[in-house]
Amino acid sequence: MTEPLRVAIAGLGTVGAGVIRLLDTNGELIARRAGRPIEVVAVTARDRSKDRDVDLSRFKWIDDPTALAVEADADVVLELVGGADGTALALARAALDAKKSFVTANKAMIAHHGFELAQAAESAGVALKFEAAVAGGIPVVKGLREGAAANAIDRVYGVMNGTCNFILSKMESEGGDFSEVLAEAQAKGFAEADPSFDIDGVDAAHKLSILSSIAFGTQPAFDDVAIGGIRDVVAADIAEAAALGYRIRLVGIAEEDGEGLFQRVHPYLVPMAHPLAHVSGSTNAVVAEGNFVGRLFFEGAGAGDGPTASAVVADLIDIARGEFGPPYAMPVTVLAKQPPAPTGERRGRAYVRLTVADKVGVLAEIAAAMRDAGVSIEALMQRGAMADGSVLVAIVTHEGPERCVAQALEKLSASSNLKGAPMWMHILGD
Amino acid sequence: MTEPLRVAIAGLGTVGAGVIRLLDTNGELIARRAGRPIEVVAVTARDRSKDRDVDLSRFKWIDDPTALAVEADADVVLELVGGADGTALALARAALDAKKSFVTANKAMIAHHGFELAQAAESAGVALKFEAAVAGGIPVVKGLREGAAANAIDRVYGVMNGTCNFILSKMESEGGDFSEVLAEAQAKGFAEADPSFDIDGVDAAHKLSILSSIAFGTQPAFDDVAIGGIRDVVAADIAEAAALGYRIRLVGIAEEDGEGLFQRVHPYLVPMAHPLAHVSGSTNAVVAEGNFVGRLFFEGAGAGDGPTASAVVADLIDIARGEFGPPYAMPVTVLAKQPPAPTGERRGRAYVRLTVADKVGVLAEIAAAMRDAGVSIEALMQRGAMADGSVLVAIVTHEGPERCVAQALEKLSASSNLKGAPMWMHILGD
Repeated sequence: MTEPLRVAIAGLGTVGAGVIRLLDTNGELIARRAGRPIEVVAVTARDRSKDRDVDLSRFKWIDDPTALAVEADADVVLELVGGADGTALALARAALDAKKSFVTANKAMIAHHGFELAQAAESAGVALKFEAAVAGGIPVVKGLREGAAANAIDRVYGVMNGTCNFILSKMESEGGDFSEVLAEAQAKGFAEADPSFDIDGVDAAHKLSILSSIAFGTQPAFDDVAIGGIRDVVAADIAEAAALGYRIRLVGIAEEDGEGLFQRVHPYLVPMAHPLAHVSGSTNAVVAEGNFVGRLFFEGAGAGDGPTASAVVADLIDIARGEFGPPYAMPVTVLAKQPPAPTGERRGRAYVRLTVADKVGVLAEIAAAMRDAGVSIEALMQRGAMADGSVLVAIVTHEGPERCVAQALEKLSASSNLKGAPMWMHILGD
Repeated sequence: MTEPLRVAIAGLGTVGAGVIRLLDTNGELIARRAGRPIEVVAVTARDRSKDRDVDLSRFKWIDDPTALAVEADADVVLELVGGADGTALALARAALDAKKSFVTANKAMIAHHGFELAQAAESAGVALKFEAAVAGGIPVVKGLREGAAANAIDRVYGVMNGTCNFILSKMESEGGDFSEVLAEAQAKGFAEADPSFDIDGVDAAHKLSILSSIAFGTQPAFDDVAIGGIRDVVAADIAEAAALGYRIRLVGIAEEDGEGLFQRVHPYLVPMAHPLAHVSGSTNAVVAEGNFVGRLFFEGAGAGDGPTASAVVADLIDIARGEFGPPYAMPVTVLAKQPPAPTGERRGRAYVRLTVADKVGVLAEIAAAMRDAGVSIEALMQRGAMADGSVLVAIVTHEGPERCVAQALEKLSASSNLKGAPMWMHILGD
């Protein structure tokens, strides 16, 4: 057997410990598959004394994480520290500078600095891999970069945040508003104490922007993702959606539309016949639609130490095999710079929910605002009054320009009959 | 840009023409992704004059397909002739012998001769790739070989024959017995004039045996697959399954159980909560369960010229990138020879449907046979008499050894009250 692939790990939280446990458990099998053993040679973490349930005495301990790239006798640096900048970024730069391959599960850092790091990796002739940064254990970076590589991708989209999907699934199965279910999820450890990155859509946007670049051959453009979260979804939205034949999912979606690259993370109404409607709990799923392959659907665990370790070690195996190339499927020098697509001219169907006063003339006011903005209504439901006397009106529009819906809502928001901000969700088209 | 990857194609049916069309349509994009252009340089087929809707005049025409490997100035030979032996096999041997990489969509040939061909490819140091041989456009060979490579695979299984799934889905949505729906499918071109390879499970078994080798690191053992088809599924089975919360799918399933490698293709009752239950029409899907990643689910088009061409060209891109290794994930020299697992000791739940005379004492006879064989009954449904006066009895068993069910059915088959062979289907466990 040839020389082992030597790995230095920075960050020994649950994922870091999971990687070591995985290599301990499956090491022999992996050596057969990779053609050579994968060996951890050095580690670093904030707290050396913490009990991690794995034996670290075998590895060289290095106190300063940014020194890992130089001091460890490693072929690959594996970064599991997290955070878009700071230690993780310093380590990434140092590793690539030292011509070490670099593997990470850090979606925030790749979303913000992936382009720069890919430039560094490509000029150093080493690997930069981040399968675990998108959709946990699901090999979707590989699925796009390699599996679907023969296709022009029409659209890539999916459910990429497990916390949001857990909350929405719970609201579906047990009722309850967003805030109640979030509190329960936090109590059980399924959501962070500060859950804003997850529930406001930022985490999903990180992942989406990474997939966009690979799918469309464009420079990463995280700042161009239009981001919305699920804070304002209420039990009545879930119920109305169900009555109409939909489930609500936080969907990240990207497509090239001729005028630019469209990237959006937002709660969508997903038709029950679409596979994404059946993605429940903390599961993730990604759909890629190619011009020859049609629709590919990848589903699996989007988080957790086991699945994340699986994706991280798959990257290590690729490197051990020498089967890696440009991180974004094509060299950074040929990635196109795409402007964001203007969203106003986008067409689609919409779900709008309004909380209004229970008064004569309110429905007429809503209907007039929609008509004046050129929004064609497909269905409208008004249900009985709520505890505070207000009434919910849910509207599904026919397909039309999104700017018309925006215009109608702007007009309505000035009305004294509106008891809260309107909720606007897009309906996922086929 | 570096030298193109030169490809010689044998076989210009719908898939061969699809590959040429794909390279014409997406060629520039593919060159950017692969790092170099992929160019067809020579072709061969049975009939040169046939109109294929693609311009062949650009390519060198070679009459003798087995001469392609030598006469074409190619890096890769792409075989789309089909058939386990004959021309396809002669060409494969000639190509690898000439140290050309070899790509194929030929499941039958890989199931029967993949081991020999992998030996030849590995000793020649060239690629042997067959993504399109399993589940059409879905990158599941890659998903197992690379995406899930960090895991010990517990189980790999899926819906791998589009014709069967089309027929079963149609029976579900529109009623009708197998033979009626098959005739309709044949009339519409969704099933072959001689459909036996598909409906008797042989095609799915070819694919399963290929996946088994990659998943478990075992030598291909197509002959060890226990194969059953869907000929005997009647409308009443679909209805009973639905009433019990299941859908019937032709499932190929493989697992290592300590005593050997278990491989079976058979109609299964799939619980509605399982993603395979929602795989409809000619769609395929494969599930891989790994010891760290958990359950991975891959779904997409299992056949058709576009999806198949997508998988074939993905293989060519891997070769153009130099990102390929042993066809079965590990070198043939380390693939283990696993005996088939003894099926009798397998445990599971079963669905049994009996067609019996509408007479006093028949139910008692059935119940006694089950009891005597040690089969514990979870549910039993008897529905009203059929047109010919016979009665259907459907039974769902508790989990127990399969041999007990076999024993009960053997005893019952001697009974004069039985009006036809019993139908026995397994119930897919979580």
